Amino acid sequence: MLRVNSRLLTTRKSQFMFTSNSLRFLATFKPADPLTTHDINPQTVEAKYAVRGKIPIIADELNELIQKQPQSHGLPFSKIINANIGNPQQLEQRPLTWYRQVLSLLQYPDLLKNGDPETVKSLYPEDVIERAQSILKHIGSIGAYSHSQGASYFRQSIAEFITNRDGGYVSHANNIFLTSGASTAVSYLLQILSVNENSGFLIPIPQYPLYTATIALNNAKPIGYYLDESNHWSTNPQEIRELIETNQSQGINIKALVVINPGNPTGAILSSQDIIELIDIAAEYGIVLIADEVYQENIFKGKFVSFKKILSELIEQDPQTYKHVQLASLHSTSKGVSGECGQRGGYMELVGFKPEVKDVVFKLASINLCSVVSGQALMELMINPPQEGDPSYPLYKSETESIHNDLESRAESLYQAFLQMEDIKCNKPMGAMYIFPTLDFDPAQYHKLYSRAKNSNLQIDDIYCIELLEGTGICCVPGNGFGQKPNTYHLRTTFLPPGKEWIDKWINFHKSFIKKYKDE
Amino acid sequence: MLRVNSRLLTTRKSQFMFTSNSLRFLATFKPADPLTTHDINPQTVEAKYAVRGKIPIIADELNELIQKQPQSHGLPFSKIINANIGNPQQLEQRPLTWYRQVLSLLQYPDLLKNGDPETVKSLYPEDVIERAQSILKHIGSIGAYSHSQGASYFRQSIAEFITNRDGGYVSHANNIFLTSGASTAVSYLLQILSVNENSGFLIPIPQYPLYTATIALNNAKPIGYYLDESNHWSTNPQEIRELIETNQSQGINIKALVVINPGNPTGAILSSQDIIELIDIAAEYGIVLIADEVYQENIFKGKFVSFKKILSELIEQDPQTYKHVQLASLHSTSKGVSGECGQRGGYMELVGFKPEVKDVVFKLASINLCSVVSGQALMELMINPPQEGDPSYPLYKSETESIHNDLESRAESLYQAFLQMEDIKCNKPMGAMYIFPTLDFDPAQYHKLYSRAKNSNLQIDDIYCIELLEGTGICCVPGNGFGQKPNTYHLRTTFLPPGKEWIDKWINFHKSFIKKYKDE
Repeated sequence: MLRVNSRLLTTRKSQFMFTSNSLRFLATFKPADPLTTHDINPQTVEAKYAVRGKIPIIADELNELIQKQPQSHGLPFSKIINANIGNPQQLEQRPLTWYRQVLSLLQYPDLLKNGDPETVKSLYPEDVIERAQSILKHIGSIGAYSHSQGASYFRQSIAEFITNRDGGYVSHANNIFLTSGASTAVSYLLQILSVNENSGFLIPIPQYPLYTATIALNNAKPIGYYLDESNHWSTNPQEIRELIETNQSQGINIKALVVINPGNPTGAILSSQDIIELIDIAAEYGIVLIADEVYQENIFKGKFVSFKKILSELIEQDPQTYKHVQLASLHSTSKGVSGECGQRGGYMELVGFKPEVKDVVFKLASINLCSVVSGQALMELMINPPQEGDPSYPLYKSETESIHNDLESRAESLYQAFLQMEDIKCNKPMGAMYIFPTLDFDPAQYHKLYSRAKNSNLQIDDIYCIELLEGTGICCVPGNGFGQKPNTYHLRTTFLPPGKEWIDKWINFHKSFIKKYKDE
Repeated sequence: MLRVNSRLLTTRKSQFMFTSNSLRFLATFKPADPLTTHDINPQTVEAKYAVRGKIPIIADELNELIQKQPQSHGLPFSKIINANIGNPQQLEQRPLTWYRQVLSLLQYPDLLKNGDPETVKSLYPEDVIERAQSILKHIGSIGAYSHSQGASYFRQSIAEFITNRDGGYVSHANNIFLTSGASTAVSYLLQILSVNENSGFLIPIPQYPLYTATIALNNAKPIGYYLDESNHWSTNPQEIRELIETNQSQGINIKALVVINPGNPTGAILSSQDIIELIDIAAEYGIVLIADEVYQENIFKGKFVSFKKILSELIEQDPQTYKHVQLASLHSTSKGVSGECGQRGGYMELVGFKPEVKDVVFKLASINLCSVVSGQALMELMINPPQEGDPSYPLYKSETESIHNDLESRAESLYQAFLQMEDIKCNKPMGAMYIFPTLDFDPAQYHKLYSRAKNSNLQIDDIYCIELLEGTGICCVPGNGFGQKPNTYHLRTTFLPPGKEWIDKWINFHKSFIKKYKDE
């Protein structure tokens, strides 16, 4: 190595500081090459996240082409329909007025202090003004860092919401952590639970790829348990127990059981009985239950019952057996009828954890300082909305009902469309925002398709989704991004895009796909 | 293991669903114990984060006591002064009106669509309305997820800001990643660069504890290089080179060199010459430069020059040597005169990275979906503020000047106070929000203090900060949370708290501390 001595530095300084750029400095060392993917953390290289993976990236490129060359892009469509991600406000779902009015005042409290009161009242209903004042009084500025777990005022309010939702079983504010959507909660939990590469996580198949991605980042082991497509994507506790026993006998230490209810990508809802059986497993094996309940408001059929409620009932019946069950339940402002994805609001409730373990979660939250405070406020507005008699109530009610009905009728339209498509099978969506139909293409009848797959290193569902995108602009995610039983193929689509035109395009595309690939 | 068979489940179900709570269910298995810290990821247990660590936690408890028993708490003060964290708006710094007016409209665009235009104009200046309209036109709703790197409109604007700041050297929007404050950027970078426990990270001592905490979480190796307190906390490139050579010879693979400029906790500013020498090190050894430049607006003395600008000049002079230097530079809306910590805005610019490595960062950002979109908008408002002639300009100018002057005069007052305190040494703060004075307590003169430390398992700076908190309510962070040379003791305080009263309390406390512990 050539060491830079102080004389040289002096020379250099004068060259650098005082001469024109045409005079070049002669380096005294040989520069190194930049890093490649072989030089960085292999877990970060290997993790996969299909929701914004290969096909959505192609969609982005096509979209860019359309923007740049609106007249001459040469594509058979003029816009991309993003059915790959549950992002309602990207697809014309309007935000709830109640949320946005309060957030508007929280961002600009001077309006309340210095604005002409009559003028302000002409623009904002009285209960909006009161709520904003009450929040500001308790938390101060939304521009200040809050407590690492989130402002105590919001946590108290969330605890009351949970208590009411669950029929009176008490929730405590110090068990609540405000998070950036639910993703941060998943990240904290999987990080603390990943001891080494033998730490196992039971995840549903199909699953939301955040889980496999985060498990991969933590170099832990995903253990998939199949949801039963033939029985509304229900869980099979016996299979889960067998997986635990098998994996334990192979030295895998199972740390958590992830349950997504209502299901993503399946749109299914668990019964109380399913939930009891999963809690039993957690109790018996000392496994943390991660209940991803972000779609709890998106229910079209059946009823949502929280893990917390059932666990509380079980503890009441049999405290010795259930008091140590460790449950993390997750919620978000991104889904439901809120759809406020970009605002990054969310919370998790931790029950049954030892204080020393909760302290570690607290430390992770502290390292991130706090979740965005406007998102914390939005969570409060979501779980504590206007009540009958409040000035904002009628509009709030009509907006939420309209969004809910829209989602339900879109789900139904898309479901009906899948039912009539040749060689597509589909469960009726009960909740969430997604349908996960089977591409039921029998190899004996689709020789061209399977030979294309073989020759192209693509899977059947990849081919279908790519051709759907290229033919119609509709962007979905192949089932292999979520996990599926071997030799089965699916896709996940949201039912968020408005209108029926895109569904008609899909039906037509499907006919031509069948014509192209099915044996005659 | 007792397997739950289907008959039992049926019995159970009926018990659970239909009987009163007084009838208890008899469990068929022995429940497991909950996890302890021995069962979870040891890196998460071991990571330390002093800014919200031991002493701030005591402060929170005292604060709770004051809130609960305002008349009978028995403490010698009536409020906590949080000088432990750079959180300006917690300490009465007012947000800039320009930011909050635009954000208010972004949250409630219906005001622009449906509100009476004259009324809206009476509350919001014209350029505020125009900016809000322009942002909404480009990004749609702030309630939608943006592109994983952040909305392209904002990234374009940030790239233009960097280009102008750095004298015309071009920045590209596709190199910009919007992040939640700068912490997320640090987390992505350290995560991808941590290959195994032999991955080394050069960090300054003293440093912001986010770095040691994140390195610990990634099970990598922190390698401290000392800043030279006797020379305004400057860097010593020769020492850094020696550290690299020594560590490499011991099998450590040095991945990144972290530089905080302006410094936290030191408040110092690097010279251009310092920066050149650090870039040379990065070029020669192929080490990623992480330039934490979040305090670039907080300059009271000297001049801030970005790493990106100097690197661009060097590339212009000698492209072969410098074109592969990998630089990540970080900025935030939390600091500067903005102080909008709770809004979680930030960005990083990546230059010199291979596309395949940048793709991995993109994937990590995608797994988190996107940073909060209102925080992205705030970043745009910060780097693209009103210009002379715009209606908002006069107020914007007077507010920013007033905050800047306040910070400067508070820094000066506190600095002067430290100068007059017995056995305290202190560099004049040049930037950022912090002072990091030395507690220059000679063991030969402070026998009682050193023997207390020995008997209590506390360090000298711990004792000082605890007694300061308990005596005055002022909450600081002991230097050992940031790192310090052996047998030296410091503390970090922000100079954000308003007024002089707290400084007078500190001076009095210090006198009594000296009286208590210094040999007579």
